[in-house]
Amino acid sequence: MNSKRVGWIGTGVMGRSMCMHILKAGYEVTVHNRTKEKSEDLVREGAEWKDTPREVAEESDIVFTIVGYPEDVESVILGGDGVLAGAATDSILVDMTTSKPSLAEQIYNKAKEKKVAALDAPVSGGDVGAREGKLAIMIGGEKEVYEQVEPFFSIMGGNIAYMGPAGAGQHTKMSNQIHIATTMIGVVESLLYGYRAGLDLDEVIDVIGAGAAASWSLNNLGRRMVKRNFDPGFYVKHFVKDMGIALEEARRMELSLPGLALAYQFYVAAMAEGLENKGTHVLYKVFERMNGISQ
Amino acid sequence: MNSKRVGWIGTGVMGRSMCMHILKAGYEVTVHNRTKEKSEDLVREGAEWKDTPREVAEESDIVFTIVGYPEDVESVILGGDGVLAGAATDSILVDMTTSKPSLAEQIYNKAKEKKVAALDAPVSGGDVGAREGKLAIMIGGEKEVYEQVEPFFSIMGGNIAYMGPAGAGQHTKMSNQIHIATTMIGVVESLLYGYRAGLDLDEVIDVIGAGAAASWSLNNLGRRMVKRNFDPGFYVKHFVKDMGIALEEARRMELSLPGLALAYQFYVAAMAEGLENKGTHVLYKVFERMNGISQ
Repeated sequence: MNSKRVGWIGTGVMGRSMCMHILKAGYEVTVHNRTKEKSEDLVREGAEWKDTPREVAEESDIVFTIVGYPEDVESVILGGDGVLAGAATDSILVDMTTSKPSLAEQIYNKAKEKKVAALDAPVSGGDVGAREGKLAIMIGGEKEVYEQVEPFFSIMGGNIAYMGPAGAGQHTKMSNQIHIATTMIGVVESLLYGYRAGLDLDEVIDVIGAGAAASWSLNNLGRRMVKRNFDPGFYVKHFVKDMGIALEEARRMELSLPGLALAYQFYVAAMAEGLENKGTHVLYKVFERMNGISQ
Repeated sequence: MNSKRVGWIGTGVMGRSMCMHILKAGYEVTVHNRTKEKSEDLVREGAEWKDTPREVAEESDIVFTIVGYPEDVESVILGGDGVLAGAATDSILVDMTTSKPSLAEQIYNKAKEKKVAALDAPVSGGDVGAREGKLAIMIGGEKEVYEQVEPFFSIMGGNIAYMGPAGAGQHTKMSNQIHIATTMIGVVESLLYGYRAGLDLDEVIDVIGAGAAASWSLNNLGRRMVKRNFDPGFYVKHFVKDMGIALEEARRMELSLPGLALAYQFYVAAMAEGLENKGTHVLYKVFERMNGISQ
């Protein structure tokens, strides 16, 4: 398997850690990123730099992409200098960006015309999960292709789930984000209620976070809200992108999601307040301001 | 400690199990319930029946109450034939109903006038927690009184938290319910999205329920939604009561909780559809109907 030549596009916080695991497993890797400096670590570790996604694809049997927004996915994969323009017959393309399920289907179809296989494989688990090789990976595409790529997923992740045909990985990630969005409102309102009632918020989390009100968000991000540490685990601006995709896909599927719509509006407010580069738990601050609480 | 004579008012699903633990620990117990039949198990086990809460209090050093609604708490404790009318100086009154924080303060003050100590000590963990003696118990009142009652709490619960002065137990329970209310919307919308996208919902829970989207509600009630088993763990009608209290208290404290308000409206819709005696996860059905999904 180490004979496969790997291409990697996108070396932000997540991509850099993920690609590093592949490199350290002994694979030959070519790499590209919009900002070249962010690939320096990897080049030092032995990766070869290429000036375009197309050139990366020309040197690779399998190409992974993890970039920012659906527009970036489109340009990096489907653009004139994109991966598909350089991909050889029977090569494999794996997009790990959280992006539109409908775009994942489109990429799958365009790749198929060129006899290139494609998977959508967004991840969850943040920078820490990426660094520790413990990401959750949700995969859509053909099962036989998934099985070929599985050894790579095992290097990057701990919780690897094949979910169905093209787009199914992205849809699963949307389910994930939809749950988180509304739960975050629950965490914020629960803690603000406790604050107004004069309770010790860490004690509140101790007791309610061990029972039926337990959530990852409460027990992790709730603790950070109490400490007023709003540094990003996951950026507000990326969450807004994800929720926007989920709302658009839901509308397309004729599904009304009022909880998600409400959460979306509050995160739009967070953007308006200039909090786009804070962590998603900064929603606490948005609700504080709304309630005339200044700290 | 077994020398203390215990009174117990309220032998519904929760109260019966909790009182049974006290009885089996060797205490002398007198008991009362609006519907006498629901106390028969306890009487068979050695509890003595009394016709009014007042008569129970007359025979007890400590009286526990766990009834339905704040109106019931008021009549059972403050009414003419209520506990306070019969309570001796230096006896203790512990209300374990989920009820209004402001009513808990009022009871504390009226009890104090009679030199009776009072705690508010609502629970979480449902019928299973009550049966297994593993409830979470959130306690408000004077700390010295809490310490006297602690041995009883230990018999009934596994996660016992003293939270502060009178009302603090009820406030903590409200924080708990507020988190659950909005999280439930997140669970429902996340699963309905997955359903519309054609995903296997148990597989979705497997993968997203192990990461940042993990919640007790998703991993327990989400599974029941998928099985379409809407039997009550916790009744819709009681949840509507709790959310109504939380919204009223929040308004009193000048706190706007839009997520809770939204959840409340959907549960009011559940009541309107005649689902008041189903479990809270029947919200899934409400959202299905809203989206024209019939199963």
